[in-house]
Amino acid sequence: MGIHTYFRSLNELERIIRCPGKFKFEEHSVSAHSWKVVQYAKTLADIEEAHGIQIDWKKLYEITSSHDYGEIFIGDIKTPVKHSSVQLRQLIQQVEEGMVDHFIDEHIPEDFKAIFRRQLREGKDSSVEGLILEVADKMDQVYEAFTELQRGNTEKEFVIMYRNALIKIKHIQLNCVEYFLEHILPDMMNEETLSPIDIRRITEEALAV
Amino acid sequence: MGIHTYFRSLNELERIIRCPGKFKFEEHSVSAHSWKVVQYAKTLADIEEAHGIQIDWKKLYEITSSHDYGEIFIGDIKTPVKHSSVQLRQLIQQVEEGMVDHFIDEHIPEDFKAIFRRQLREGKDSSVEGLILEVADKMDQVYEAFTELQRGNTEKEFVIMYRNALIKIKHIQLNCVEYFLEHILPDMMNEETLSPIDIRRITEEALAV
Amino acid sequence: MGIHTYFRSLNELERIIRCPGKFKFEEHSVSAHSWKVVQYAKTLADIEEAHGIQIDWKKLYEITSSHDYGEIFIGDIKTPVKHSSVQLRQLIQQVEEGMVDHFIDEHIPEDFKAIFRRQLREGKDSSVEGLILEVADKMDQVYEAFTELQRGNTEKEFVIMYRNALIKIKHIQLNCVEYFLEHILPDMMNEETLSPIDIRRITEEALAV
Amino acid sequence: MGIHTYFRSLNELERIIRCPGKFKFEEHSVSAHSWKVVQYAKTLADIEEAHGIQIDWKKLYEITSSHDYGEIFIGDIKTPVKHSSVQLRQLIQQVEEGMVDHFIDEHIPEDFKAIFRRQLREGKDSSVEGLILEVADKMDQVYEAFTELQRGNTEKEFVIMYRNALIKIKHIQLNCVEYFLEHILPDMMNEETLSPIDIRRITEEALAV
Amino acid sequence: MGIHTYFRSLNELERIIRCPGKFKFEEHSVSAHSWKVVQYAKTLADIEEAHGIQIDWKKLYEITSSHDYGEIFIGDIKTPVKHSSVQLRQLIQQVEEGMVDHFIDEHIPEDFKAIFRRQLREGKDSSVEGLILEVADKMDQVYEAFTELQRGNTEKEFVIMYRNALIKIKHIQLNCVEYFLEHILPDMMNEETLSPIDIRRITEEALAV
Amino acid sequence: MGIHTYFRSLNELERIIRCPGKFKFEEHSVSAHSWKVVQYAKTLADIEEAHGIQIDWKKLYEITSSHDYGEIFIGDIKTPVKHSSVQLRQLIQQVEEGMVDHFIDEHIPEDFKAIFRRQLREGKDSSVEGLILEVADKMDQVYEAFTELQRGNTEKEFVIMYRNALIKIKHIQLNCVEYFLEHILPDMMNEETLSPIDIRRITEEALAV
Repeated sequence: MGIHTYFRSLNELERIIRCPGKFKFEEHSVSAHSWKVVQYAKTLADIEEAHGIQIDWKKLYEITSSHDYGEIFIGDIKTPVKHSSVQLRQLIQQVEEGMVDHFIDEHIPEDFKAIFRRQLREGKDSSVEGLILEVADKMDQVYEAFTELQRGNTEKEFVIMYRNALIKIKHIQLNCVEYFLEHILPDMMNEETLSPIDIRRITEEALAV
Repeated sequence: MGIHTYFRSLNELERIIRCPGKFKFEEHSVSAHSWKVVQYAKTLADIEEAHGIQIDWKKLYEITSSHDYGEIFIGDIKTPVKHSSVQLRQLIQQVEEGMVDHFIDEHIPEDFKAIFRRQLREGKDSSVEGLILEVADKMDQVYEAFTELQRGNTEKEFVIMYRNALIKIKHIQLNCVEYFLEHILPDMMNEETLSPIDIRRITEEALAV
Repeated sequence: MGIHTYFRSLNELERIIRCPGKFKFEEHSVSAHSWKVVQYAKTLADIEEAHGIQIDWKKLYEITSSHDYGEIFIGDIKTPVKHSSVQLRQLIQQVEEGMVDHFIDEHIPEDFKAIFRRQLREGKDSSVEGLILEVADKMDQVYEAFTELQRGNTEKEFVIMYRNALIKIKHIQLNCVEYFLEHILPDMMNEETLSPIDIRRITEEALAV
Repeated sequence: MGIHTYFRSLNELERIIRCPGKFKFEEHSVSAHSWKVVQYAKTLADIEEAHGIQIDWKKLYEITSSHDYGEIFIGDIKTPVKHSSVQLRQLIQQVEEGMVDHFIDEHIPEDFKAIFRRQLREGKDSSVEGLILEVADKMDQVYEAFTELQRGNTEKEFVIMYRNALIKIKHIQLNCVEYFLEHILPDMMNEETLSPIDIRRITEEALAV
Repeated sequence: MGIHTYFRSLNELERIIRCPGKFKFEEHSVSAHSWKVVQYAKTLADIEEAHGIQIDWKKLYEITSSHDYGEIFIGDIKTPVKHSSVQLRQLIQQVEEGMVDHFIDEHIPEDFKAIFRRQLREGKDSSVEGLILEVADKMDQVYEAFTELQRGNTEKEFVIMYRNALIKIKHIQLNCVEYFLEHILPDMMNEETLSPIDIRRITEEALAV
Repeated sequence: MGIHTYFRSLNELERIIRCPGKFKFEEHSVSAHSWKVVQYAKTLADIEEAHGIQIDWKKLYEITSSHDYGEIFIGDIKTPVKHSSVQLRQLIQQVEEGMVDHFIDEHIPEDFKAIFRRQLREGKDSSVEGLILEVADKMDQVYEAFTELQRGNTEKEFVIMYRNALIKIKHIQLNCVEYFLEHILPDMMNEETLSPIDIRRITEEALAV
């Protein structure tokens, strides 16, 4: 019916819990995750600027804040499902995009349609802003998984999430990734942990991939 | 590693909440839903037996108790997504079946493989047991949605869920469906309600489809 | 008022949490427990069938799915209370049975009264189905207590629950008990644990009783 | 092992939820209930003092603060169960007292045993302090049930709880009961309510019993 | 110890619940609120741009995403407390700023200190970005309070929050405020509601202030 | 509007969670804390009486049960904020007292005003009852923090809370403090713990301050 329908829909992401089905000492909603991604990305972009890279802040704002909005329509589809076949992944992405388009057609006033189409697009392209979003998104997986492992969670899914996110980050060519690997990750490794799992070894192996 | 891995995995369905994203006065886990489906199906089958229909209780036991086990692997994919295209629906079903097969291959001992393949198959076939499962599964959607509407929940998704489940039930040719429409649904309609939504009218319209 | 009253009442078991008063990393409702008992019992019965034992699947279905339904009427009475005297235990059982009878008299239509009386009876008799129910019910106590201990819970009640359930299972003469002791329990012992409590030693002592 | 064991055990009453099994918009722990009873009783005793009645504040302190401590041992036994027969009620009370005695014997140091026996006794005797405790305890049931009904809860159990608690209060001969009926209850009746249930009529009927 | 300490601290805002003490049908964390403010502000800024106003997106990004970060240090101080005296308000603001400064001094590396000082400043100045933040922040209070009232919550605090936020928004001279009043608020008013409170009248009165 | 408004307001302390923002394995409401303080204080006073000290039980009842009532008005202000400057602390206390006075003026009937002014005053004076309240309040911080540390919580705030509370208790000249240090604390130290933090050493250091 209008922007109200869109604003009201934001509330839904507070009720979708990440990593459903797995035991967690602490749950995270998609909206809390989205806010942390916005915050990480801001600092990562500051690091890029300090290295003389130019940042399109409007674009970064748009793609980080809305990057999981599509979960309102498609729900939480487990990563292994999405990636089980290239064909399925493409189909799911088509469906998500179709549903976002349908929402915009039905609810967003004419004057805003183009803006929303741009904002709710998939933001993880090869631009510096797209890459920063990818790093920030994976960094939150690192924090989520690390925090669970640190408290003694022995669910294998968190080891896999932690490891895969680290590998993904490591292969992105950005100054902020170097900063993360040299300054942030070592501080994380120095925290006290209850885990019977050797997080340091998993970290080193992931960084060697 | 064995039956232990399977038994332990059952715990995951306690942590998957049905209808994620929508406001609910009361949440239901997939395991609580599964238990209610088992219970409804038992009484529905009793009604069939009272009409002289023969029930294969072992089959009914197997298909009702395990009917949502696959959600452990694929997570909660929203119904509109599953049904957005025949092609996508088939692909998702293939993926789910592939993942269940993979789990059985990896974790279930040889002697049990055939049993688990039978038990974890899609149970909603055209046999009387398959139809009873379909009715029981939809009946829980009727109860879930009705209870929310009754407490004054105005989320449209619950109106749609209630209406679609009723229509689905109504078109299944079973004695227990007749019993439900003549004896259970009227009692439900007579409960006190806070709802500004006219549930009785929605019910009548659904039954007239 | 009819079957509707019974179906609606099932919802109550989702709101009764097992082992109230004790600190738990994860809570379990009576309905989630009931569903797991249904699932374990199915596999335990499969094991019996593989040893040539005949299973009455209808009876097993009825007694496993409804085995804790009476908690709707009597609430959660702590095990030590129930067992503090033979006289009290019998009186509480009489009250529970009286309340179930009263519910059936008041709410269940004539045609179903006999069926419900049979289904809501105490199912733990000396038949193979009754014994399987007993094993499945205790097995869920083993899983519940083990999972808490494994995560580092130091509440003594979980040690006692784990130990007593194991001893109870061990003394039941069934093929599935042998399978549990030889194949499932060892896999459980091999899981990683945070516990300062020596679960393996407690297990060995319990099995030696 | 000592007073520490007792102090630590207090934590358990935070984890026991009142009125288990019933749908509630808001849950109350036994410890939160206990604190409110302490607070109500203080004001009720102030009213008695204003009428020239002498209050033994030490006794009132002891019996109000500990009046539900026994639930740590016996758990939450539903009221209808307790009252289903005089014999059962007496037996349950004997068991509760036996368990409290056993706890004192085992954990409380010699010097404190007599004090704890006095404090953990059943406090609802016919003294003014015992009667104030009874009123305060029932008043919390009135508040709990009224608040649920006011928010639109249609569970019959809350109507029964509200009505029975009012009738119980009304028949206790205390100045503070008069104050409650003349000053507090009318303010409650004037609050806005969503309820399709006619609380005012139920109140008037209860007061006419 | 570094940026890690800052990133890790973001997690704390997921555990601070807005409007503590009041009954709510749905709770909102400060991080979920922060994300919604980021989202509203983006669309409000789009509206300003459509009216030819230039937006500093970097500034808007910084001040919206971090606007409640200080709550990590000072906790949730109730609005009436903050505003009870000009002197107290100023002192609390000084304390908050002092704590943020202290955090930056202790944990943020030299190269980032100036950036963090700018980002964690109070953002609600008289610039267009500062005003948009103020509108977005108040808009979330409107949504929070409206949603509770709509579900039948009768806590007066939500009426006050709704009314005050509307009045605050109304007096800010921005194109997006006009859009909100003409297009968004009317859609909100047209939603179904359970409330015995006349939200439409409260809205009209607030807009007439 | 009267005592009803006061009684109803007690409910709010069930919804305020102590130590907001920090990760906790178990949450405690202000009302549950208040009840435990009432219980500890009773036993501490029993110890004083055993040493021949006279206790004003009415005063002790009043100040322990209401000691955190003011949090209804001012919310949870973090300890570091309160103590950041003498001036701020005094102002906040003034505001709290002003709000309590305002509540009494507006809602409490004439006859009760003096009583409520006395009961809702700050109770931690230098009388034996005031000192017992201080010990009981800090003892609950000891229990809260110890229990979290014991379960492996590595949040520094709990180490600080534990240590500061111990130091505070230790410097109060009461017989019950001696009892606590000689009999209760050693039992606490003997409990099993998961913590990588050396609680025993922290305890010894705190007691040596």
